[in-house]
Amino acid sequence: MIGSRHARLDGAMSSDFEHDWDRRRRTGIAEAVMSDRKSVAQLDAIGREALGVGRNLLFTRLAGSQYGGLHDDLRRQLDYDPTSRTAILGPIAEPASPAQICVVTAGTSDLPAAREATRTLTFNGFAATLVVDVGVAGLWRLMKALDTIRMHRVVIAAAGMEGALFSVLAGLVDSLVIALPTSVGYGVSANGITALHSALASCAPGVVVVNVDNGFGAACAAIKAIQAAAPVGDPASPA
Amino acid sequence: MIGSRHARLDGAMSSDFEHDWDRRRRTGIAEAVMSDRKSVAQLDAIGREALGVGRNLLFTRLAGSQYGGLHDDLRRQLDYDPTSRTAILGPIAEPASPAQICVVTAGTSDLPAAREATRTLTFNGFAATLVVDVGVAGLWRLMKALDTIRMHRVVIAAAGMEGALFSVLAGLVDSLVIALPTSVGYGVSANGITALHSALASCAPGVVVVNVDNGFGAACAAIKAIQAAAPVGDPASPA
Amino acid sequence: MIGSRHARLDGAMSSDFEHDWDRRRRTGIAEAVMSDRKSVAQLDAIGREALGVGRNLLFTRLAGSQYGGLHDDLRRQLDYDPTSRTAILGPIAEPASPAQICVVTAGTSDLPAAREATRTLTFNGFAATLVVDVGVAGLWRLMKALDTIRMHRVVIAAAGMEGALFSVLAGLVDSLVIALPTSVGYGVSANGITALHSALASCAPGVVVVNVDNGFGAACAAIKAIQAAAPVGDPASPA
Amino acid sequence: MIGSRHARLDGAMSSDFEHDWDRRRRTGIAEAVMSDRKSVAQLDAIGREALGVGRNLLFTRLAGSQYGGLHDDLRRQLDYDPTSRTAILGPIAEPASPAQICVVTAGTSDLPAAREATRTLTFNGFAATLVVDVGVAGLWRLMKALDTIRMHRVVIAAAGMEGALFSVLAGLVDSLVIALPTSVGYGVSANGITALHSALASCAPGVVVVNVDNGFGAACAAIKAIQAAAPVGDPASPA
Amino acid sequence: MIGSRHARLDGAMSSDFEHDWDRRRRTGIAEAVMSDRKSVAQLDAIGREALGVGRNLLFTRLAGSQYGGLHDDLRRQLDYDPTSRTAILGPIAEPASPAQICVVTAGTSDLPAAREATRTLTFNGFAATLVVDVGVAGLWRLMKALDTIRMHRVVIAAAGMEGALFSVLAGLVDSLVIALPTSVGYGVSANGITALHSALASCAPGVVVVNVDNGFGAACAAIKAIQAAAPVGDPASPA
Amino acid sequence: MIGSRHARLDGAMSSDFEHDWDRRRRTGIAEAVMSDRKSVAQLDAIGREALGVGRNLLFTRLAGSQYGGLHDDLRRQLDYDPTSRTAILGPIAEPASPAQICVVTAGTSDLPAAREATRTLTFNGFAATLVVDVGVAGLWRLMKALDTIRMHRVVIAAAGMEGALFSVLAGLVDSLVIALPTSVGYGVSANGITALHSALASCAPGVVVVNVDNGFGAACAAIKAIQAAAPVGDPASPA
Amino acid sequence: MIGSRHARLDGAMSSDFEHDWDRRRRTGIAEAVMSDRKSVAQLDAIGREALGVGRNLLFTRLAGSQYGGLHDDLRRQLDYDPTSRTAILGPIAEPASPAQICVVTAGTSDLPAAREATRTLTFNGFAATLVVDVGVAGLWRLMKALDTIRMHRVVIAAAGMEGALFSVLAGLVDSLVIALPTSVGYGVSANGITALHSALASCAPGVVVVNVDNGFGAACAAIKAIQAAAPVGDPASPA
Amino acid sequence: MIGSRHARLDGAMSSDFEHDWDRRRRTGIAEAVMSDRKSVAQLDAIGREALGVGRNLLFTRLAGSQYGGLHDDLRRQLDYDPTSRTAILGPIAEPASPAQICVVTAGTSDLPAAREATRTLTFNGFAATLVVDVGVAGLWRLMKALDTIRMHRVVIAAAGMEGALFSVLAGLVDSLVIALPTSVGYGVSANGITALHSALASCAPGVVVVNVDNGFGAACAAIKAIQAAAPVGDPASPA
Repeated sequence: MIGSRHARLDGAMSSDFEHDWDRRRRTGIAEAVMSDRKSVAQLDAIGREALGVGRNLLFTRLAGSQYGGLHDDLRRQLDYDPTSRTAILGPIAEPASPAQICVVTAGTSDLPAAREATRTLTFNGFAATLVVDVGVAGLWRLMKALDTIRMHRVVIAAAGMEGALFSVLAGLVDSLVIALPTSVGYGVSANGITALHSALASCAPGVVVVNVDNGFGAACAAIKAIQAAAPVGDPASPA
Repeated sequence: MIGSRHARLDGAMSSDFEHDWDRRRRTGIAEAVMSDRKSVAQLDAIGREALGVGRNLLFTRLAGSQYGGLHDDLRRQLDYDPTSRTAILGPIAEPASPAQICVVTAGTSDLPAAREATRTLTFNGFAATLVVDVGVAGLWRLMKALDTIRMHRVVIAAAGMEGALFSVLAGLVDSLVIALPTSVGYGVSANGITALHSALASCAPGVVVVNVDNGFGAACAAIKAIQAAAPVGDPASPA
Repeated sequence: MIGSRHARLDGAMSSDFEHDWDRRRRTGIAEAVMSDRKSVAQLDAIGREALGVGRNLLFTRLAGSQYGGLHDDLRRQLDYDPTSRTAILGPIAEPASPAQICVVTAGTSDLPAAREATRTLTFNGFAATLVVDVGVAGLWRLMKALDTIRMHRVVIAAAGMEGALFSVLAGLVDSLVIALPTSVGYGVSANGITALHSALASCAPGVVVVNVDNGFGAACAAIKAIQAAAPVGDPASPA
Repeated sequence: MIGSRHARLDGAMSSDFEHDWDRRRRTGIAEAVMSDRKSVAQLDAIGREALGVGRNLLFTRLAGSQYGGLHDDLRRQLDYDPTSRTAILGPIAEPASPAQICVVTAGTSDLPAAREATRTLTFNGFAATLVVDVGVAGLWRLMKALDTIRMHRVVIAAAGMEGALFSVLAGLVDSLVIALPTSVGYGVSANGITALHSALASCAPGVVVVNVDNGFGAACAAIKAIQAAAPVGDPASPA
Repeated sequence: MIGSRHARLDGAMSSDFEHDWDRRRRTGIAEAVMSDRKSVAQLDAIGREALGVGRNLLFTRLAGSQYGGLHDDLRRQLDYDPTSRTAILGPIAEPASPAQICVVTAGTSDLPAAREATRTLTFNGFAATLVVDVGVAGLWRLMKALDTIRMHRVVIAAAGMEGALFSVLAGLVDSLVIALPTSVGYGVSANGITALHSALASCAPGVVVVNVDNGFGAACAAIKAIQAAAPVGDPASPA
Repeated sequence: MIGSRHARLDGAMSSDFEHDWDRRRRTGIAEAVMSDRKSVAQLDAIGREALGVGRNLLFTRLAGSQYGGLHDDLRRQLDYDPTSRTAILGPIAEPASPAQICVVTAGTSDLPAAREATRTLTFNGFAATLVVDVGVAGLWRLMKALDTIRMHRVVIAAAGMEGALFSVLAGLVDSLVIALPTSVGYGVSANGITALHSALASCAPGVVVVNVDNGFGAACAAIKAIQAAAPVGDPASPA
Repeated sequence: MIGSRHARLDGAMSSDFEHDWDRRRRTGIAEAVMSDRKSVAQLDAIGREALGVGRNLLFTRLAGSQYGGLHDDLRRQLDYDPTSRTAILGPIAEPASPAQICVVTAGTSDLPAAREATRTLTFNGFAATLVVDVGVAGLWRLMKALDTIRMHRVVIAAAGMEGALFSVLAGLVDSLVIALPTSVGYGVSANGITALHSALASCAPGVVVVNVDNGFGAACAAIKAIQAAAPVGDPASPA
Repeated sequence: MIGSRHARLDGAMSSDFEHDWDRRRRTGIAEAVMSDRKSVAQLDAIGREALGVGRNLLFTRLAGSQYGGLHDDLRRQLDYDPTSRTAILGPIAEPASPAQICVVTAGTSDLPAAREATRTLTFNGFAATLVVDVGVAGLWRLMKALDTIRMHRVVIAAAGMEGALFSVLAGLVDSLVIALPTSVGYGVSANGITALHSALASCAPGVVVVNVDNGFGAACAAIKAIQAAAPVGDPASPA
């Protein structure tokens, strides 16, 4: 973690970081590797270290070109999903209980963020139900799915553009609604900022929000909300 | 309209403008006086000129203190609405036909902009139906009002905060929906910009938008849409 | 529409959406496919489904590379316009009446958005007149075209940069003016936000606005305005 | 809720809204009255209606001048807190269990938002612990309070300026952290936007966020998270 | 100008500045006093110094309350214009030649900035023609004034809202057009930023721009442009 | 200019525009072709039309790839400058008089915008002096060049980053200073907005501003300022 | 610091905070009280506690109305400066050495922030030289003061509007330059953001920046820079 | 530096700039070449001139493709670091004393900016300690490194996302903390603006800030702070 005096002008820095293998025991959520600013060499080093100590690992924001550049022995053991740009290393246990978390999207274009959320939940041992393409422009689609959605304790809603889904959904279900704004849109909704602001300004009380396209964070928050049910100090075991 | 060479440093400029009394004949919409940057003296001059030539007049954004400062003979003839800060001068004819335009608000706080719209319609001879407090956090309120709303050719929807009403409404009715964002909100929705962006980014096709709190403009656009039905070149007479 | 419990980490999700074939009957406007965030595989699946059920279909924001990647049997039946990046599937009926909608552009650079509007109108059975390159820097060009423009009930005005065309045009014609800001510009007008704000702040009453580059939405609104003329409840047949 | 045809230009609209007395039964959270855009007359009407039907009521964003203007018989029955600008009508039951929610502030200036949260919790029957002035510039203050904070299932963190407290706290406790950015600050942190962005961009996974100064929303979300622990369909009774 | 070591905690600092009496000789434009952040005591000191040395002086952004607070002997010698909030001290010579500069406004609300410009010109010995209320929503007003405007070498155009006047005017006259955006507007045009951006993004080549409401700066630039005609090194005498 | 009814779905539109060959006679500045949104086919058509009628032509924002794609017979007759991405068609007359306009840059990175200005001046028959790399971080460089700069009637100053050059220069010379902000910078100065704002907020009176990287507009304004010296109505012949 | 379970709805919270009397020993800089969001009662309590334990105290952003509301015995012992809105409690020792820090302002309007800096330095035992009104529009004023400024190890430069002073000064002196942007300006420079960005984007290497109007922070940084000279671990005694 | 009259339309301008070889003697910091807007030809010319006069040189923001395009004889003598995109020409002396400056990063993704800082320090003869990956989400990492960090007079802290590290670190060490925000992040933290604002709004007094990703500027400021310790006028020799 700590380099020595900067006497050499070398570009290599092979042990710059110290992975937090212990995070899951402390917080119930295993640490993930945000890959987009890391070199293939750095990602390889982290992956091999995980293999060496026999740990599971979740890579997020792993571009196809990064994935393709990893060493064969690591890449073969990864379950890679190009839609969400996530890769999972290690055997994932079957969830012990039915899904308590529902991930809902306004359109198919919101799937990258939504699947980052479902994959993060899977990786941490939580089942999730995925309901796709129920944006409010065709309200009857949402109505048809409502009974399904209402069966869950926490709802993650992924939407871009104007994000009207957040408020409508929160008015229809009693569960905690976590708004996951996505960068789907153009003009004033480019980059997801309008969807984000729409979620924050929601007229429905109790909507909480994560950063644009942060499916990983939404999943972590959902897990923490589920765990809030457990006696304090006793990390809830995944359902 | 045109001042002479600026030889004197006088503050008075009593005939700086030339009111467009002819606008209604040309466009079907009478010119209004946006009052907020005008002095009481200027407003008095405009009002008396209208009285003198026997014209009706609509004042918008007329603060109570401005209204109170007008000369008695003018003020007594004004119909002033403090909610919308509008004043109407002159006898308003009864609309000749049932309301073709429906003005819908998400909350009671949207009434200032909504009533600027209904008053502008009334002033120009168009009837309007006003439906209040049907924001999407309680979707059943909107559903109860839906049959009423659907009976109109044009819908003006007034909402602040996250403006989810625009998209939901546009998904439920076939009429042209004119979104009227209001400056109701705080934090990211302060000043109505989030509601505005929400309207522009709506996932429901065909929503059109006016500036924040521009109830006057929304009403003018609604009239023009109704008039689009008339044979071209022949200004539609108010319904 | 509704996926099952997320037990598998698969990337494929072939039936994630449910196309709204019924939209036209309900609203008078057929649903379109916004293509830019969809994979070629998804677009192929939608297109073939349309072929299978014998429906027309409009693709918007379809990049040349996406179009080129479609299966031959689908691609051959598409009418693709690279300027507007739209593709139309199916036989388009001749409009039954002369154009009631005029699409006007400030410059040739506004053609992509303008043609997205005209193609959407064509697809829905409405004729349109296209008037190009009449920006206000050379006002006489606009004046020459004014008689033509005035013959239409609705005017869609496409402009980028400072968008002065919106106000000038709305001051010269009685029709409903729908402002279609375009992302033409640089510096402060990059991304079309200045043109958008210019339209919203227009000093000419009754201008309505759609999102930047949203030619599809402008066309839908124009259709709805034309339909506002029909008796309520009775969807106007395309002219 | 629905006005009749707008034939009269009257300013009064005494029954413009329909209070949602049923909300608590449906969602576990009683509806509150956001007061800042309402007239004293409107607030009086709502309060008296509540008195009449024997309901409790929470007013938020109730300015001292509004409170002072209420009719005596209503005002005397209100518990008004000038710091949070909230008023509670009706007898509040003692919470049945120890506090599960902890509200933490970076400074004393964050108290208005923080107390809006604790008052909302109290009103809905939930106990809360309040920990004040533990901003990260003096980290030892936070460390001293850490054992207390960790005893709660949900933590609401209120901070303005740069909002570093959100990330630090979320790294130190396992509970769900709800970030409540406040409008405390000046220059780049004016209006709370920097604190808001800081919360959304937090490097600590699982932080969720509400709008600036939205203590009411943070409390509602905390209640929903606590309720997420209860069997689905069976609204958790307040602890 | 330079204080001594800060040993005393005194609030008074009576000689903090050194007025640039020599500016006019060097640049052809006399220095003005921007008053809005200065105390009445500071303004009094500057004014009396000017009286003492027999210099003319221009105060800009001088609020009525500041003006009213000045010492009687100074105030009596000031020519104060409440519209533009400017005060002129000293005898102003009649301009030697007809007006070469025309100041044009879109509406009467733009007069404060426009008159700051004309008063600055007067103070520096230049005549100006003022043309008011020729915004583009009623293009025929502008057309009527066009011959008058074209008789000037430099045109200052003052407009708020969407600022379409800048582009239209620049397309119609050959003179240098200096755009003076004003803070007239609301919603997206609040504070004049939309008018400013509109001016900068103008499709008409050669428009130059000053800060919002900077009538003083527009006048200075106009003088410099007129002077650009004179042989270099030889400050143009006012026309 | 005006297309016919949109009966065909064709992509070609070969005569969409009408070049303004007459502009120079009217305004003293020949029209230029902004190339960046035009196809090579469109540019070819414009260029050949110019060749056909024997006119000079200036292309701005012409990418190397666009230039390379033009037909040989057109391309060979163009004088192309890759730094400013401008191309000039036709014989350019020698300026009749010494340079009256000086173009000054803060750094070498500002050359693209600065050379767009000098090339535009050359094309219109005006000589210009170019002074490069005199940013204020090394004030002595600017001081060394000051005598040269002061010999000109109009100064165009090109600077990015913080744009301090604008104010310093305007404090040192009497000429009209036209600020040309450039998109040189990163972080808060990315896209030139900080330099633009710096120019608009300049503490030196009389600085006027054009859009970011608008070297063409700065040159046009400089020509108009020079022409302001000529008797009104009589377009100044290039010096 | 830690409140108990929130059983009571009381508004009073008399011991909500715990002043950090020990900060100076730890960091060399005594803690200050930012007053603007505190009630007079809270300020009184803090001031009396300081009196009680015999500590010096610095209040910043203390409005005149707050100061006037303090108890007589506290107020009489405060040295209050209305320009900077600071109050100092307690005897301030004479600085032991000549000023090492120079505070420079572009205009007299920057004095509030500049004096917040000098007063903070005085309070902490550091002498400072104050140089006022040396903005770059009149560069010779700065040049006259340059020898004085260069005699100091650290320079705090206070400027609003376009903030050109920061870059010019940093190019002329070798000392560390701390830019203190002020909220002096209007239009694009309203609220000091342009001056802030100008400082951050400075072309002169090594300029560091504090928040708008943060004279207190600039002074603290200057002290830390002076102390950086002392052997590490050994807090530099004030000069 | 000064071009002659612009008679030729040539693209080459081989001697447009004049490198400031003398800067180091004047300021203690050698001038660097910001490479990103320069052509390879320009960079080659500068590098060869440095070789010719036997000077050391630092290139910043030198892309790999630029580096690869340099002439062999220059490229071979450069020490190029792809992480920070810096290249150093010339023999670098060993620092004479232990590191007085510590560069700390929140994550490995902050290394490009952090290494630009350390390489700039090395180039100017100052040693630096590099501490990596101590972001506040895992506070114990920072705590482990605290003793090391505290041994330095100046701390440069590099962080993106929400930038909480700045405030936490400044609350824990007495040294001057220079915040170096990085463009690491997405959504609201894209481009580093949230980290930048977080630094400016820090609740810890005395944090100073440089532009996003400006590692070079942070290093220059650190050197100036170290030099502030030396007797004035006598540039501190590198430690």
